[in-house]
Amino acid sequence: MAEFMNEDFLLSTHTARALYHEVAEELPIIDYHCHIDPKDIAEDRHFDNITQVWLGGDHYKWRLMRAAGIPEELVTGNGGDWEKFSAFASIMPKLIGNPVYHWSHLELRRTFGIHEVLGPDTAESIYRRANQQLQESSARALMRKFCVQAICTTDDPADDLRWHKQMAADETLEISVLPAFRPDKAINIEKPGFREYIVRLGKTVGRELSSAEEVAAALVERIDFFAANGCLCADHGLDACMFAPPEKDAAEKAFRMAMEGQKVDQVQADAYKTLLTMACAKRYTELGWVMQIHFGCLRNINGALLANFGPDGGGDAINSLSGVQCLAPLLNAFLENKGLPKLILYSLNPNDHTPLASIMGSFQGFGAGGLQLGSAWWFNDSRPGMRAQLTELAAGGVLGEFVGMLTDSRSFLSYPRHEYFRRVLCELIGEWVESGQYPDDRRLLNQLVADLSYYNTKRYFGFAL
Amino acid sequence: MAEFMNEDFLLSTHTARALYHEVAEELPIIDYHCHIDPKDIAEDRHFDNITQVWLGGDHYKWRLMRAAGIPEELVTGNGGDWEKFSAFASIMPKLIGNPVYHWSHLELRRTFGIHEVLGPDTAESIYRRANQQLQESSARALMRKFCVQAICTTDDPADDLRWHKQMAADETLEISVLPAFRPDKAINIEKPGFREYIVRLGKTVGRELSSAEEVAAALVERIDFFAANGCLCADHGLDACMFAPPEKDAAEKAFRMAMEGQKVDQVQADAYKTLLTMACAKRYTELGWVMQIHFGCLRNINGALLANFGPDGGGDAINSLSGVQCLAPLLNAFLENKGLPKLILYSLNPNDHTPLASIMGSFQGFGAGGLQLGSAWWFNDSRPGMRAQLTELAAGGVLGEFVGMLTDSRSFLSYPRHEYFRRVLCELIGEWVESGQYPDDRRLLNQLVADLSYYNTKRYFGFAL
Amino acid sequence: MAEFMNEDFLLSTHTARALYHEVAEELPIIDYHCHIDPKDIAEDRHFDNITQVWLGGDHYKWRLMRAAGIPEELVTGNGGDWEKFSAFASIMPKLIGNPVYHWSHLELRRTFGIHEVLGPDTAESIYRRANQQLQESSARALMRKFCVQAICTTDDPADDLRWHKQMAADETLEISVLPAFRPDKAINIEKPGFREYIVRLGKTVGRELSSAEEVAAALVERIDFFAANGCLCADHGLDACMFAPPEKDAAEKAFRMAMEGQKVDQVQADAYKTLLTMACAKRYTELGWVMQIHFGCLRNINGALLANFGPDGGGDAINSLSGVQCLAPLLNAFLENKGLPKLILYSLNPNDHTPLASIMGSFQGFGAGGLQLGSAWWFNDSRPGMRAQLTELAAGGVLGEFVGMLTDSRSFLSYPRHEYFRRVLCELIGEWVESGQYPDDRRLLNQLVADLSYYNTKRYFGFAL
Repeated sequence: MAEFMNEDFLLSTHTARALYHEVAEELPIIDYHCHIDPKDIAEDRHFDNITQVWLGGDHYKWRLMRAAGIPEELVTGNGGDWEKFSAFASIMPKLIGNPVYHWSHLELRRTFGIHEVLGPDTAESIYRRANQQLQESSARALMRKFCVQAICTTDDPADDLRWHKQMAADETLEISVLPAFRPDKAINIEKPGFREYIVRLGKTVGRELSSAEEVAAALVERIDFFAANGCLCADHGLDACMFAPPEKDAAEKAFRMAMEGQKVDQVQADAYKTLLTMACAKRYTELGWVMQIHFGCLRNINGALLANFGPDGGGDAINSLSGVQCLAPLLNAFLENKGLPKLILYSLNPNDHTPLASIMGSFQGFGAGGLQLGSAWWFNDSRPGMRAQLTELAAGGVLGEFVGMLTDSRSFLSYPRHEYFRRVLCELIGEWVESGQYPDDRRLLNQLVADLSYYNTKRYFGFAL
Repeated sequence: MAEFMNEDFLLSTHTARALYHEVAEELPIIDYHCHIDPKDIAEDRHFDNITQVWLGGDHYKWRLMRAAGIPEELVTGNGGDWEKFSAFASIMPKLIGNPVYHWSHLELRRTFGIHEVLGPDTAESIYRRANQQLQESSARALMRKFCVQAICTTDDPADDLRWHKQMAADETLEISVLPAFRPDKAINIEKPGFREYIVRLGKTVGRELSSAEEVAAALVERIDFFAANGCLCADHGLDACMFAPPEKDAAEKAFRMAMEGQKVDQVQADAYKTLLTMACAKRYTELGWVMQIHFGCLRNINGALLANFGPDGGGDAINSLSGVQCLAPLLNAFLENKGLPKLILYSLNPNDHTPLASIMGSFQGFGAGGLQLGSAWWFNDSRPGMRAQLTELAAGGVLGEFVGMLTDSRSFLSYPRHEYFRRVLCELIGEWVESGQYPDDRRLLNQLVADLSYYNTKRYFGFAL
Repeated sequence: MAEFMNEDFLLSTHTARALYHEVAEELPIIDYHCHIDPKDIAEDRHFDNITQVWLGGDHYKWRLMRAAGIPEELVTGNGGDWEKFSAFASIMPKLIGNPVYHWSHLELRRTFGIHEVLGPDTAESIYRRANQQLQESSARALMRKFCVQAICTTDDPADDLRWHKQMAADETLEISVLPAFRPDKAINIEKPGFREYIVRLGKTVGRELSSAEEVAAALVERIDFFAANGCLCADHGLDACMFAPPEKDAAEKAFRMAMEGQKVDQVQADAYKTLLTMACAKRYTELGWVMQIHFGCLRNINGALLANFGPDGGGDAINSLSGVQCLAPLLNAFLENKGLPKLILYSLNPNDHTPLASIMGSFQGFGAGGLQLGSAWWFNDSRPGMRAQLTELAAGGVLGEFVGMLTDSRSFLSYPRHEYFRRVLCELIGEWVESGQYPDDRRLLNQLVADLSYYNTKRYFGFAL
């Protein structure tokens, strides 16, 4: 019997142990997609207690607490910080098979050196010791502890990037904190707040935006501004992947109707979205950026939760109608427009992985760089989810080119997800090697593991580290 | 090499064996969802031979016999009982990897103590010995043999529950045989026979039902009647999960058209179905009932089979267009209506498990009790199907809250499916523990296995046992 | 640690090794579905070098080369044969987990006796030795090396089958090379080139085809011509499975509009397609043929690739909207038309396997022979893909009836895919037996493995070998 989460956690073969401990373990982290607030790093935020940094913004944990019957007061409500921590600890024994069970323990170990099993009996002692250590820590100190070399935050085109600028000028900060361009609010024309956002974007570029074409031009201008501030990538979030022939008339009509507050017909909306997405993709291609597209999401499906809490409270889900089949004409439109950038494609719906990999495979070699099947994330970043993504990518593409893991997290404690990924990767490769499915050639294997843990990301995005 | 289906069947680790034999094995069975005819228990039916009780109503076995080339005469036709049994035995060797192979052997072992492998060579001896034992058995005796403590049958709102009443008054019956409320015929307005059913339901409540509103009121009345007879749960079966804004005008129009024999437009039909389902859900919430919704079914797709045999002859299948995405607005409508009851959600399509779990997760904590991802059943109750359901539930929710297995069966010999589930569960937990993914804490593990085998069901439904 | 791809490759248990080496290994190959050019066998084509025979028509390898950054010149372009081979060898180390990695090594071993790992260091030596051996080889010699007993090529209804006739008369050819009937161009009315094809088909039967009914009659005539030339099966490829009520008026209208170059409305197009498919199925039923239907494909999604290279250049993908649910009414229409033939059903989308098996299961016993869930192929013929298909078929049907593997290949070197399948099959059965899930009864197991490797195919298709 393997000991619970010891140093060889998930490393079930000799090969896996060697690859992890000799190669993967010591490599730095590039977290190319996260939702950390740049201000927290710029100001090197301190945290009062573990509840703030660990439960404060984590809808993964909130959803589990609710499902285990914890009242909302102790989830996101007015309950005390200790009471919330204690409530979370009390449900831990029921979380068998959930990645949060593993992440939580990895986070306690790597951040605080706390190796006890978290549960009702140990909660108080763990809370006290973790808080003690937090007093002497900070955002930057946490990042350094995890050997974070670079991260990309998620930023609005209208953002002035003031914190990023401040950090670029800060000689005490050796970590690259780069912005990432997320133009969803200018593209998702069917969402509430579109009009208001277009006005805001217009103010940012200093002119009123009165057509789809002008919105596109404004976005391109902001892309260039982001590029001037070190940005290397963009991130497009779609509830469902869409495609409509990018006809200007239809797009302009959709824009006018949306700006007048009228309901936009879906084909016209999709024409607008397709056209705008293509315009961005073209500029990314010219700049050598990486474009990320993720889709397959149902947003804010619980109205009461949205009303009480706002977005990101745990009310999103997987969209089975992810529109993955629309990706084929969309990528072809990028290509015809001479603007098929480096692309990472994610669907929240794990059923899409194999179809998605097959669609990507049809465009490899025709764009500015390889197309990537995005990591198993959000609802899929469990051990079986990651194994499935890796297996499906390997079977339908070239695993050796993969850029690997991201946290997608709002927390400074989430970096052990990279460790988790690297362990799962080494476990899987170890199984393949030791069952005779790949040569036991340590030179090749070391290269492979190093590439998938770190070097592919560095090369693909072009981080200057 | 493990012996074929011995006492440690599927229990691949020391932990699995300990958990199964020390905890799961001896716990009683609550079968909260089945299709047993209550009359058979009330009258303590006797069976002439194993073909009657084992092949008589089992479309699982019929489908396999047809696929293996057995003529219909020996499946559901006029063939003799021995000839049918013999035909089934003859195909057993080809059923490798099918759960019926395991269930059949478990059933022979646990019911009759027969441990031979069933096949052409052993069929005659097994048939003779099983029949001998059946002479001294009966419906109740079979249930007692399997330590069945309670079951919920499946009953029509128009049913008078006479058998349930008779059993409630029968002091010789220590097993709880409760009804379950299945209002499909009043809700699925698009199905043949809707009009006739509404007339029947009207007679049951003693007044003509001339509007959707009146049908809803009649259903609520029958829910209360069921509750007065011990009912704790309802079961809604939908070919595909639907949602339409529950507008009364649309619903009433749909009702009028259906009653006039006209074809109902889908949006209107869905408005009717949504409105009726919400009305039921609200009453369930008030009564503390468990609502089950299952969807993703193609019914009676083989017209010749339906014409010759009627429903439930083996002509149903999985509906890929299961409408799982409609569940999000449907649950939100329940919530806005202050009627989100305890809910078990099943899709026949295994691809829906992960999306479904994510949708459920967005409503946890907002209803009358936890939402549950239903067990792998019908087309999914194989070992890999159950493992997938458990793994996906664990990764996307809280496994420790799960209410576990049901048989969904028409037969008194199907209770070993609970044993099968408990073995699969212990196998999986054993793997997690022995690979260091969960602490080897016997107290926690015993609790977990006991909860998932028995206690969660008892608590969640509120069985007074 | 198992040695890399040695004689016990994938055979992880004693049972697996015994079953493979004592039963599966020596059985001949019937490749009932491939895209070999019959001319190559008729003329016993010789190959100049391994690039021609190995990379010349293999879009699997092309896609991987592109994904690994190889320029098109060395994929399908004007690069030299050695340079192309060398480029492919250079990416091999990155292909961990891809079936091409295994196939390539199996092909080098079984064809040329070359056991080195292919990679940059070994490429030159392997290229030289393989080419040397190819000088003394030929199409027929390669087929004999793999004990190929029979193959079915893929042929157009308008084909004169001249090469098949020549081979039938060639006494030096002991391998059965039979045609297979693929009427897609006459059925897929929505595709470019439909009109031109109908004219061509008309010329073949010697009369103008001026109605859907006449096209159906022409196809039946050609089916009979194929039957007279030894054909045993047909293959229908659909982007998505369709169904519309097979109304003659709608079908004829669709035909007229298509022939006039007008855009055909989808319901009418589907009526035409349904009607034509039913007409073919009926004739297949009468002749005892096997009908294959495969669906779930996005064709030629990369316009630039199509323009430069034409079809089959690697620009196809999996269609998530595969229309699997339409299969139910389509099969029922076959049945009502008294024309439900022996059927092998494939979806390219692996998510369809379980739903598809359940639909098939509803029609078993009602047609001219069993319905088969087709092998994991194309985007699914990896080890995990094959294991999933076998497991899902076993759980939802009768594995013992399965007709097993096909190559679907254009190459004479692809026959080791049958070896790969047989190894995966023996691996899986070995696991089941040694974990106590099936009896360790060597007589039954030998029969099962022999049936799934060879005899079921021979019986099901009716090969006279």
